[in-house]
Amino acid sequence: MSENGKINISFPDGSIKQYPKGISPIEIANSISSRLADDVVVAEVNGKLVDLVKPIEEDARVKLLKFTDEEGKKVYLHSTSHLMAQAIEELYPGAKFGVGPALEDRFYYDVDSDHKFTDEDLKKIEDRMIEIAKRDLKPQREEMKREDAISYFKSKRVDPYKVEILEDIAKDDDVVSLYHQGGFTDLCRGPHLPTTAKIKYVKLLSVSGSYWRGDSNRQQLQRIYGVSFPKKKELDEFLNLLEEAKKRDHRKIGQELELFMISPEVGGGLPIWLPKGAIVRQELEAFMRNEQKRRGYDFVYTPHIAKIDLYKTSGHYPYYKDSQYPPLDFVDETGKKEQYLLKPMNCPHHFMIYNHKPRSYKDLPVKLAEFGTVYRFEQSGEINGLLRVRGFTQDDSHIFCTQEQLLDEICDVIDLTQYVTKSLGLNNFYARLSFRDPHNKEKYGGVDELWEKAQDDLVKAADKMNLECTIGIGEATFYGPKIDFIVRDALRRKWQLGTVQVDYVQPERFDMTYIGADGQKHRPVVIHRAPFGSMERFVGVLIEHFAGNFPLWISPIQVVVIPITDNQNEYAKQVYAKFKEGFRAEIDLRSEKVGYKIREWETKKVPYMIIVGDKEKNNNTISVRAHKRGDLGTFNTEEFFKSIEEENNLKSISK
Amino acid sequence: MSENGKINISFPDGSIKQYPKGISPIEIANSISSRLADDVVVAEVNGKLVDLVKPIEEDARVKLLKFTDEEGKKVYLHSTSHLMAQAIEELYPGAKFGVGPALEDRFYYDVDSDHKFTDEDLKKIEDRMIEIAKRDLKPQREEMKREDAISYFKSKRVDPYKVEILEDIAKDDDVVSLYHQGGFTDLCRGPHLPTTAKIKYVKLLSVSGSYWRGDSNRQQLQRIYGVSFPKKKELDEFLNLLEEAKKRDHRKIGQELELFMISPEVGGGLPIWLPKGAIVRQELEAFMRNEQKRRGYDFVYTPHIAKIDLYKTSGHYPYYKDSQYPPLDFVDETGKKEQYLLKPMNCPHHFMIYNHKPRSYKDLPVKLAEFGTVYRFEQSGEINGLLRVRGFTQDDSHIFCTQEQLLDEICDVIDLTQYVTKSLGLNNFYARLSFRDPHNKEKYGGVDELWEKAQDDLVKAADKMNLECTIGIGEATFYGPKIDFIVRDALRRKWQLGTVQVDYVQPERFDMTYIGADGQKHRPVVIHRAPFGSMERFVGVLIEHFAGNFPLWISPIQVVVIPITDNQNEYAKQVYAKFKEGFRAEIDLRSEKVGYKIREWETKKVPYMIIVGDKEKNNNTISVRAHKRGDLGTFNTEEFFKSIEEENNLKSISK
Repeated sequence: MSENGKINISFPDGSIKQYPKGISPIEIANSISSRLADDVVVAEVNGKLVDLVKPIEEDARVKLLKFTDEEGKKVYLHSTSHLMAQAIEELYPGAKFGVGPALEDRFYYDVDSDHKFTDEDLKKIEDRMIEIAKRDLKPQREEMKREDAISYFKSKRVDPYKVEILEDIAKDDDVVSLYHQGGFTDLCRGPHLPTTAKIKYVKLLSVSGSYWRGDSNRQQLQRIYGVSFPKKKELDEFLNLLEEAKKRDHRKIGQELELFMISPEVGGGLPIWLPKGAIVRQELEAFMRNEQKRRGYDFVYTPHIAKIDLYKTSGHYPYYKDSQYPPLDFVDETGKKEQYLLKPMNCPHHFMIYNHKPRSYKDLPVKLAEFGTVYRFEQSGEINGLLRVRGFTQDDSHIFCTQEQLLDEICDVIDLTQYVTKSLGLNNFYARLSFRDPHNKEKYGGVDELWEKAQDDLVKAADKMNLECTIGIGEATFYGPKIDFIVRDALRRKWQLGTVQVDYVQPERFDMTYIGADGQKHRPVVIHRAPFGSMERFVGVLIEHFAGNFPLWISPIQVVVIPITDNQNEYAKQVYAKFKEGFRAEIDLRSEKVGYKIREWETKKVPYMIIVGDKEKNNNTISVRAHKRGDLGTFNTEEFFKSIEEENNLKSISK
Repeated sequence: MSENGKINISFPDGSIKQYPKGISPIEIANSISSRLADDVVVAEVNGKLVDLVKPIEEDARVKLLKFTDEEGKKVYLHSTSHLMAQAIEELYPGAKFGVGPALEDRFYYDVDSDHKFTDEDLKKIEDRMIEIAKRDLKPQREEMKREDAISYFKSKRVDPYKVEILEDIAKDDDVVSLYHQGGFTDLCRGPHLPTTAKIKYVKLLSVSGSYWRGDSNRQQLQRIYGVSFPKKKELDEFLNLLEEAKKRDHRKIGQELELFMISPEVGGGLPIWLPKGAIVRQELEAFMRNEQKRRGYDFVYTPHIAKIDLYKTSGHYPYYKDSQYPPLDFVDETGKKEQYLLKPMNCPHHFMIYNHKPRSYKDLPVKLAEFGTVYRFEQSGEINGLLRVRGFTQDDSHIFCTQEQLLDEICDVIDLTQYVTKSLGLNNFYARLSFRDPHNKEKYGGVDELWEKAQDDLVKAADKMNLECTIGIGEATFYGPKIDFIVRDALRRKWQLGTVQVDYVQPERFDMTYIGADGQKHRPVVIHRAPFGSMERFVGVLIEHFAGNFPLWISPIQVVVIPITDNQNEYAKQVYAKFKEGFRAEIDLRSEKVGYKIREWETKKVPYMIIVGDKEKNNNTISVRAHKRGDLGTFNTEEFFKSIEEENNLKSISK
């Protein structure tokens, strides 16, 4: 601390300024510019987010965050969720509140109210929110002991949900914080905006059912989602994006293009791939299969059930039984009873294959691959088209290797993942490395040094492969560290797809060994990996990414030949026969106006329409219309065939 | 009848001879030649099999059957089963007898004895059988009323199994027959050999457990299998064939070549395809997929479970529940209960696809295809490697067509089946047409005329496609008539593989419709078909047919490059790199003697070994050894590559 009651504040750009002791971040902002004071939403002081009005008592590093900063946006959204709760309380007295967090791009609050909220109600709440925001209320933080907070929410402000949170989650000696704004008070860690007036534009998006604490035996609350922005332009952009996302909804496009169906008679979350969707899947599977064969993977097929003891050995049963279909009780003709489980993952089957014969270090790495269909229980409220399902096919593999091979194998898996996602135009992707919490080592299986080495190998591999990545400490599973691949689609939405997981626990549990160069038994390490993640989810993401306008090589129908009138039918058939040799081609001989046919095929998103009239017939040429790009002109048939054959073989996605 | 107590006997060659009334078939045979009398084992009189000693009282058509006739052989074997029972009774007094039928190439008898039969006992029984046979016992037929037979087997000859058969199976007013030979009596329809002396060579093959009347809650009996022949040469041939079949046992070869495994941890009857077996399967699937796409089939993927109601609609549940895995009881987070069934067939899923949108006659035929894995309960005593399993993948399809299209579609299915089986060298095959019993029409679903037309179409199709076939009246299923394809393998053993089934019932049950040219709703007809039957069974048969010596295109390893010494390692690597471009190739750089390596690769049945020594290296050539054919000589690398590339592309099986 400096003399004269001054403190040194250092900024992210490296500059240091003196301020009076007790100055608040908002005052600092104001001292710089009133524009900055307008824009700033929260401060990071010595690495910790705090309210802008909190006095700073000693030298500190200060970062002033705006709405455009990720953390700033979250605080903005979180304050908006308080604002919404306040508006609901004013409009629907007696409402109680569960939790109301900010997500990456929106917030929600779970509300317990006798009133069933409609879309009109949401509009009414929005209006009230804007009205309250303009009251310029200044959220006040109050800290108190846990037991005081409990009695506060029992007597002063009766809210059983907050009491339950305090009783269950907070520890005895915790000091907790409440935020007051106007007549509304919430239990909250904070921080919050310095005034509600910073919230300018609000849109409530939807209301849906949600069980209190995710437990279907508890009260069902109403979850209201919303967004908020300081600028109208930002709200408009968001709503446009939402509109665009709706248009790209894979369920809608999936139905229009007849890619897949969900049959209530078969069951929820169990997609059925229709012929056109099956083509997309087959092309992707063939692509992935060939690429894996090239890289030394061996394919296997394993059954969809196994005795339950296999999952007891792996530890998946009963510990994960809530996310599995229930066991099948099977009695054979001799009266022998057995329990089978619909396989929730392919790993134990692959472990049986590894173990079926002795392995030498010379055989390693063993890379077993399978397009393996697995079944997991997802709550019916969670299932969603192809993106969240109960039955899905993983492009799965298990790599059994030595410790020394681990780095190379991880690099190869990263390379494969980069290769296949980029081949599909998903160029924008990064990875999240999940490491163990070094202060909680007992939470994890496997030996200490191996963890260190594996985490080290993951970092080295990411480095070597120029993989943009973040590290999540304490996010590893029990089994080992992992990498999750996250892609951003054409709308910059994030999707978690592939995963690479290092596993030290299963080799122990299944007593996997190999004979080393030293003649001794050693444990292999197992890598679990699936670049696409699942065929269902991946195709779902592709549909939304491309808005159904697939690249040529995975388009269910690639070419359609359309004669202008019946006079060219014979010529059209010749052209069709030619394209049928290399493509999934159709011919449209209906006696309809050519304009009508073109419009109809345009809705089917067929990459190329070949239009033939008398001119084309006489000159032995074709006219081509590309989907979304329109007329490409007239071509020699053979030349055009070759040009799109190349596009197809190269799996080009440029157009 | 002629005058003078003479009767006219007509023979298969059209000739008619006069004989005294009351003459027996054996006397007729003797009148022709004593050689014939020696060879004949049973007679067919007016189309009915009778004992050779049974007097003929009026004009009749007579066919004298030898051991070489299918029906003659069965009588011979059946008499041998009586002979075995007699021998057992003499050696192990107190033994009781279940049933003892003749099968196509062997017989068995189910024996209830306190004595547990060993292989040595079987030898002892064989010896006693030959001894009894030489006693020249003449089986005597005695007919009596059912109730008399019951009291006979209750008092005179205490045998509870025969009593149960008589009480349960025979009708009140039936006259039943007993056969006596020496001190042994059996309940039996006959006919039998005229003397035990005709049985010359006997071999008892095995003893295994078998539940009385196939019911696991009843007494377990000992089933003894055996064969018998008039000539030693025939027995020797049979035993050689058995030996050869043992060598070709797909379970043995499957293990040696690492094609598949059964894991007790996963479960019985649930084969796991190891990498090399998966290659065979993938090649066959790709072959079949391409051929089907060429023929206008559309592929789909459907889940492995469905709500049980789907199978109630189809009628498969609960009527076939004994051959299914038990249902899964599923409760979702809202407490909603559902039952799911592991799918025993793909049909209902495909029906959902057909029904998911309106269909026009212009869309038909719709041909949905899937390599669909299904699960069925097979008794643990019945499961056998890949041939009889609990989980298997059908190369399934359902064709939805109009009545008018039925004939063409059946022809195309027959053509496809002929094409794919012949492509795999299974040239020897025939079909069995299963028709309904015209006297029991009420047993079958669907409309009368449709059955007539469909049966007619099957016959027409078989005719048109030059399909060798037999017709089984009364063998159709409830749903419609069908064709089963039976192939004979290299050992002339029969295997039932593919099937084509016409179905009138499911279109009704699932209310399938299409809009006809008349604008009205019509019912399509469904064809169920699977040319391979199942991938598991088909590959099992292929392994035994080829004795593991697969044609090049499905060989898991196609080429192996072997340097004679380490001096040629670099050259071997060049050659290997070349062959790797077009084939599943390996290289053997171990520092072992070349003879040792060749012997080892010979056991892996790799079609081509490429051996390179200094001579090859210096001349830039390769020496080739073909599996089982030995040295092929020296080749230019490029030329040999091209020649086997052609063999591979043509899916040649000649070698």
